[in-house]
Amino acid sequence: MRKVTVYITLKQGVLDPQGKAIQESLHSLGYKEVQEARVGKYIEMQVEDGTDIEVEARVKQMCDKLLANPVIEDYHFEVEGAVRS
Amino acid sequence: MRKVTVYITLKQGVLDPQGKAIQESLHSLGYKEVQEARVGKYIEMQVEDGTDIEVEARVKQMCDKLLANPVIEDYHFEVEGAVRS
Repeated sequence: MRKVTVYITLKQGVLDPQGKAIQESLHSLGYKEVQEARVGKYIEMQVEDGTDIEVEARVKQMCDKLLANPVIEDYHFEVEGAVRS
Repeated sequence: MRKVTVYITLKQGVLDPQGKAIQESLHSLGYKEVQEARVGKYIEMQVEDGTDIEVEARVKQMCDKLLANPVIEDYHFEVEGAVRS
């Protein structure tokens, strides 16, 4: 079993009301040093073992088809134990 | 300005219906190798500069007070350019 971690973020330029709300709440709590906050998703999966290339190709498909919305979101992922390409 | 990245995950044992839904959707798309999926939050902030210790202490407070719910969530964070303690 391998751990796969997927990070999904809004593309640069896409409005992020949740991030804006967090920034404003932090300001009102006195954390004025926070200039920007943007919120993304973080997905941890346990995936059955395979070669690095197989697992990476399958995870890329999962991101493109289901996990991320490629119109407004970017993603990157890490496969535990894989040599970074 | 420093980039701070906060990762918030549900504690082990806390039910994650969103993760379960993702896992089931992946199965129905044919990705049967996914044994578990858990969803967390990923927050990127731009924070005004300070010493590593100051920034880390402030970010820890932000997590405890606002960003994470310590009853059901764990968090960790990375401060860009900080020596890991």
